[in-house]
Amino acid sequence: MKEIGKEFMELTMYRNLEESDQQKGMTQPPLEVEYLDGEVIKLPKETLKTNALLDEIIVQRKSLRKYADKPLTLEELSYLLWSTQGIKSKNEKVTMRTVPSAGARHPFHTFLLINNVEGLKQGIYRYNALSHTLVTYNLEENIAEKTVAACLGQPFVATAAVTFIWTVDIYRASYRYGQRAYRYVHLDAGHVCQNLYLAAEAIDSGVCAIAAYDDDTLNDLLALDGENEFAIYVGTVGKK
Amino acid sequence: MKEIGKEFMELTMYRNLEESDQQKGMTQPPLEVEYLDGEVIKLPKETLKTNALLDEIIVQRKSLRKYADKPLTLEELSYLLWSTQGIKSKNEKVTMRTVPSAGARHPFHTFLLINNVEGLKQGIYRYNALSHTLVTYNLEENIAEKTVAACLGQPFVATAAVTFIWTVDIYRASYRYGQRAYRYVHLDAGHVCQNLYLAAEAIDSGVCAIAAYDDDTLNDLLALDGENEFAIYVGTVGKK
Repeated sequence: MKEIGKEFMELTMYRNLEESDQQKGMTQPPLEVEYLDGEVIKLPKETLKTNALLDEIIVQRKSLRKYADKPLTLEELSYLLWSTQGIKSKNEKVTMRTVPSAGARHPFHTFLLINNVEGLKQGIYRYNALSHTLVTYNLEENIAEKTVAACLGQPFVATAAVTFIWTVDIYRASYRYGQRAYRYVHLDAGHVCQNLYLAAEAIDSGVCAIAAYDDDTLNDLLALDGENEFAIYVGTVGKK
Repeated sequence: MKEIGKEFMELTMYRNLEESDQQKGMTQPPLEVEYLDGEVIKLPKETLKTNALLDEIIVQRKSLRKYADKPLTLEELSYLLWSTQGIKSKNEKVTMRTVPSAGARHPFHTFLLINNVEGLKQGIYRYNALSHTLVTYNLEENIAEKTVAACLGQPFVATAAVTFIWTVDIYRASYRYGQRAYRYVHLDAGHVCQNLYLAAEAIDSGVCAIAAYDDDTLNDLLALDGENEFAIYVGTVGKK
């Protein structure tokens, strides 16, 4: 079998990298392309205060696949979005967020499969971090079942209150880092998911991270081309 | 230029994966090979309690490259190790740790470049998570300068109190996941580093994650072959 992993590590070493577009002096891509083609839902401006203790949360955290049949509130969902991708400050070149990202590229979009959040219809939504809003993306009837199928039949994707699906707009990272960006976006997605784990624990909820999904099916479901933008990580969230 | 990133994503899709060694019924590798060839330093059994609030820590966290010339205590270092790789429970097949890892593989080793920790000589140490001990690994004189060089001259590697270097024993993950494991170990390393960021913040310290290093030089410095085991992520820590 072709050892693609070994080859990938080798060819993304500095001695094998070509000049990046940034090094060539090209203009950087936008910080985020806002998605506005659906119904826009404003999220609460004030972020929930949970009073959770970091040390306890780190120790208590464990992956949860069975959820209580309880909804998340919009405030709780907003807290999770803030904790994973919230923008603390920005200028023309970068956003500073609640998670670190190589070169502050933050090349992600957050899609949500919403099953059980107070006040929101079931369906897939996209988060606009710049405006801290949600936008309806795909509310077709069997969308939860289709997402389960894309996640190789893992049934808790449909019983979770919400499933986070992070996608990468790869050029936002490769503009600066070339092919080595493919390492960085995975590392960065790990930061994001870890904050989801911890923030969820603080609202009496649990997470299960999923990296075992069918790439093509999940990308198709989100209408992504799979090359310029593709799914990189998934996390289900539900009440304990 | 060869688009190795795109090819890597493509060839690690399920339809392109071969049966993994686990699927073939082969015996799994050990949970961790303890390193015992140096002086063993026992770490405190009781973990520090910081009383830090998760929400505040997440918002305060930012990458820090300039450190105060203050040491970390052994208790603080132990707290950082516990928060990033601490083992909460285990059985013959898996360890459950303070971070999530795909299939609970936890394929990492933690190396530390120690510059300024109370009671410890400067040098590189390895952490044995199973016994929560440190073992001296390389105490040669210019080791900090060599680590800076491996990190492409980023000088704060030598001014940090301690630099975490996570390496991957790839077979612990690929045994189960085949070539797709190379995605997962990066995602997992992101979880680990995010916990380092948050735990460091709780002890009035800051972190700077580094993924821009010369792979060969860093692997050589740690006496790793670069194929079965290789550096995957680096994080400096020092007092504010």
